[in-house]
Amino acid sequence: MMETKEIGRQVIRELMGDAFLEAKDKTRNEFNAPIQEYAEDVCFGRVWAREGIDRKQRSILNVAMLTALNRPAQLRSHVEGALTNGCTVDELREILLQAAVYCGLPAALDAFRVAEEVLKARKLLD
Amino acid sequence: MMETKEIGRQVIRELMGDAFLEAKDKTRNEFNAPIQEYAEDVCFGRVWAREGIDRKQRSILNVAMLTALNRPAQLRSHVEGALTNGCTVDELREILLQAAVYCGLPAALDAFRVAEEVLKARKLLD
Amino acid sequence: MMETKEIGRQVIRELMGDAFLEAKDKTRNEFNAPIQEYAEDVCFGRVWAREGIDRKQRSILNVAMLTALNRPAQLRSHVEGALTNGCTVDELREILLQAAVYCGLPAALDAFRVAEEVLKARKLLD
Amino acid sequence: MMETKEIGRQVIRELMGDAFLEAKDKTRNEFNAPIQEYAEDVCFGRVWAREGIDRKQRSILNVAMLTALNRPAQLRSHVEGALTNGCTVDELREILLQAAVYCGLPAALDAFRVAEEVLKARKLLD
Amino acid sequence: MMETKEIGRQVIRELMGDAFLEAKDKTRNEFNAPIQEYAEDVCFGRVWAREGIDRKQRSILNVAMLTALNRPAQLRSHVEGALTNGCTVDELREILLQAAVYCGLPAALDAFRVAEEVLKARKLLD
Amino acid sequence: MMETKEIGRQVIRELMGDAFLEAKDKTRNEFNAPIQEYAEDVCFGRVWAREGIDRKQRSILNVAMLTALNRPAQLRSHVEGALTNGCTVDELREILLQAAVYCGLPAALDAFRVAEEVLKARKLLD
Repeated sequence: MMETKEIGRQVIRELMGDAFLEAKDKTRNEFNAPIQEYAEDVCFGRVWAREGIDRKQRSILNVAMLTALNRPAQLRSHVEGALTNGCTVDELREILLQAAVYCGLPAALDAFRVAEEVLKARKLLD
Repeated sequence: MMETKEIGRQVIRELMGDAFLEAKDKTRNEFNAPIQEYAEDVCFGRVWAREGIDRKQRSILNVAMLTALNRPAQLRSHVEGALTNGCTVDELREILLQAAVYCGLPAALDAFRVAEEVLKARKLLD
Repeated sequence: MMETKEIGRQVIRELMGDAFLEAKDKTRNEFNAPIQEYAEDVCFGRVWAREGIDRKQRSILNVAMLTALNRPAQLRSHVEGALTNGCTVDELREILLQAAVYCGLPAALDAFRVAEEVLKARKLLD
Repeated sequence: MMETKEIGRQVIRELMGDAFLEAKDKTRNEFNAPIQEYAEDVCFGRVWAREGIDRKQRSILNVAMLTALNRPAQLRSHVEGALTNGCTVDELREILLQAAVYCGLPAALDAFRVAEEVLKARKLLD
Repeated sequence: MMETKEIGRQVIRELMGDAFLEAKDKTRNEFNAPIQEYAEDVCFGRVWAREGIDRKQRSILNVAMLTALNRPAQLRSHVEGALTNGCTVDELREILLQAAVYCGLPAALDAFRVAEEVLKARKLLD
Repeated sequence: MMETKEIGRQVIRELMGDAFLEAKDKTRNEFNAPIQEYAEDVCFGRVWAREGIDRKQRSILNVAMLTALNRPAQLRSHVEGALTNGCTVDELREILLQAAVYCGLPAALDAFRVAEEVLKARKLLD
C-alpha cells in the first residue's frame, strides 16, 4: 500500500507538474522539511486524495477560500491548479465575481489581479 | 425586461423557499430596507443570476467562503441553499474537511457544527 | 494634571454613561484588572481623549472597524456610543451599507442585526 | 435618467481623477470587465453616490475598514481619495492611531507606512 | 508501533481528560467522523505529539492564535488545556494582555471574557 | 522613576538592537510620531516591560499571533526578536508547524518563508 506522503506527492505532480515538485524538493532543508511533509502528507495525501468531490472542485474551493483568507502566493498556485484541472476562464471570473459580494470588493480586486497575471502568462488572456 | 431586483427575489425564492422570503419581507423597515435591496439586487439579481457556473457551484463556493470568513449565521443559510441546490451530504463533508487544511481546524470545527445542525433538522443525519 | 487613566474614565462616562462604568467597575477582579486599566488608560485616556477628530467621528470609525473585525459585542457598545455622540440613524445605515461593499455582505448583515437591536431598544426604530 | 454605472464613473472621476479612470479603462479586458463594472455600478454608482454621509466621510470609513481588512493596495487609493475629499493630514493620523487600539499595532504600522508614502508623493510630508 | 491516531487520542486524553474524549466519541457520526479523525490524527497525533516544545507551550500558542483567529469555542477548550498543562492564572493574563496590543482591544476583551468563565468554573477566580 | 516611554525604548534596544532604534528614530516625523510613541510607550513600555512571562515567551506569542494576523513585516521583526531572546531554530519550526493546524497551511507557508529568510541572513540555515 502506498503511503499517504507518496500519494500526496503524486497528487502534487498531477496538479502542479513535475517541475514544480522538483523545484520544491530542491528548497527542502532541515528547517522547512516538516511543513513540506505536512503539505504532502496531510494536505495532498489525506485530503486532496479523497474521493467525494473531484480535483476541479477542490481547486475551485481553494481559489474561493484563498481569496477570503488574503493569501495571494497560495492563490496564484491554486489558480494555476484550477486551470490545469479544467476550470475555464469563464468559471474563474464567476468565482471571483461572487467573492466580491461575500468577501468584499477589495478582496476580489486583489484576486482578479493575481488571476490576470496567471492567465496572461498562460496566453489565455491578452 | 425584468429588473435585477425582481430577478434577485426570484433567485432567493428558488434557493431558500417562499417562506424565507416572506419572513424576510416582514422584517423590512426603514433602517434595513437598503441592505435588503442590496442583497436582492446586487447579490442575487446581479451575481447569483449570472450564468457561467450553476447554482450548486455558487452555493458550494459560499459554504467555503463563509467558513473562511467566520460568519456562522450566513453559513447556515447557505448550507441550506447548498442542499436545496443538489449538494450531497458527502460533498458537504468534503468541502468542510478541505477547509480544515486551508482555513485551519477551528474554522472547520465551527462549520461542521453548523452543518450538523442543518442536516439533523432536515433528517439527513441521525 | 489629571492622569491618563482618570481622563479615560471621564471619556467612558461621557460616551457610555455612569451606569456602564459602575457596572464595569463591579466586574473588576485581580484577573481582568490590567485589561480594564488598559482600556481606560490606553484606549480612552490616550487615544479617545486626543483632539484632531471629534467623538462622533471616533464612534463612526469604530462602527466601521468592528464590522470589519467581526466583533459583535464591541460593535453593540460602539453603536450605542455613536448614537450618544450624535450619529443619526440615517448616518448609521449609510456606514453599514458601505461596509457591505468593502467587508462583504455577510459582515454587513451581521452588523445591521446588531444595530437594529440597539435602535429598537432605544425606540429609534419600530 | 443617468444609469448607475455612469453615475459611478462620475464619482470615480471626482474621487480619483480623470487620469485614474482612463488608466483603469485601458486595463479593461474580457476577463476583468465584470468586476470593473461591479466597482463602477455597485460600489460607486449605488453606494458612494448615495446621500446621508458626505464623500469625505465615505473616504474616512474606507481608510479605517481597509486597515482592518489588511488590503494595502486599496488602502493606498482611498488615502488618496480621502485627501482629495478634504481629509487633513492631522485627521488621517488620528484615524490610523485609533486603528492601532482596535485593529492592533501591526495593522496600524502597515497603514501608517502606506499613508506616509502617499503623503510624501504629494509633498504633504518631508 | 502505535498509530498516529492512537497517539493523538492519548494526547487528547491527557490534555482534556477522559470525560472529554468519551463525550466526543459519543457525538461521532458518519458526517463528522473524518474531521474528528483529522483532529486526532493530524492535530494531536502528528503535531501535538512532537517534541521540540512542551505541551504548556503548545497550549499557550493556541490561546494566542485562537484569540487572533476569533474562535471562542476552541479558545475555551485551550484555556482549559493550558491550565491543565501548568499555565498559571498570571501567565494567562499576560498572554491576553499582550494580545490586546497585537490583535486589538476587542479581540482581547472577548478572550478575557472566555478565560474568566473558565477560571470561575474552576474556582481559580472569585 | 523612569517613564514608560523610556522603559519601552530600553526594551526595544534589548530586543532589536541599538541600530534598529536609531534607524527608527531617523524615520520619525510629525505624521508618524504618535504611532512611534504608542509603540514605545504602550506596546513596549506598558506591556513588554511587565513581568509574569519572560521576553522569550513574549516573542514566541508574537510569532504565533502575527502568523494568524497575516502581518509579514511585523512577523519578520519578531522572528528576529525571538532568536535574540533565545528561541531556538527547532522551537521556531515547531511554533510555525503548529500554526499550520490552527491558522491553516497557507498562513504557515507564508510564515515559514519569512522565517527562512531571517535564518539564512543570520547564517542559522544553509
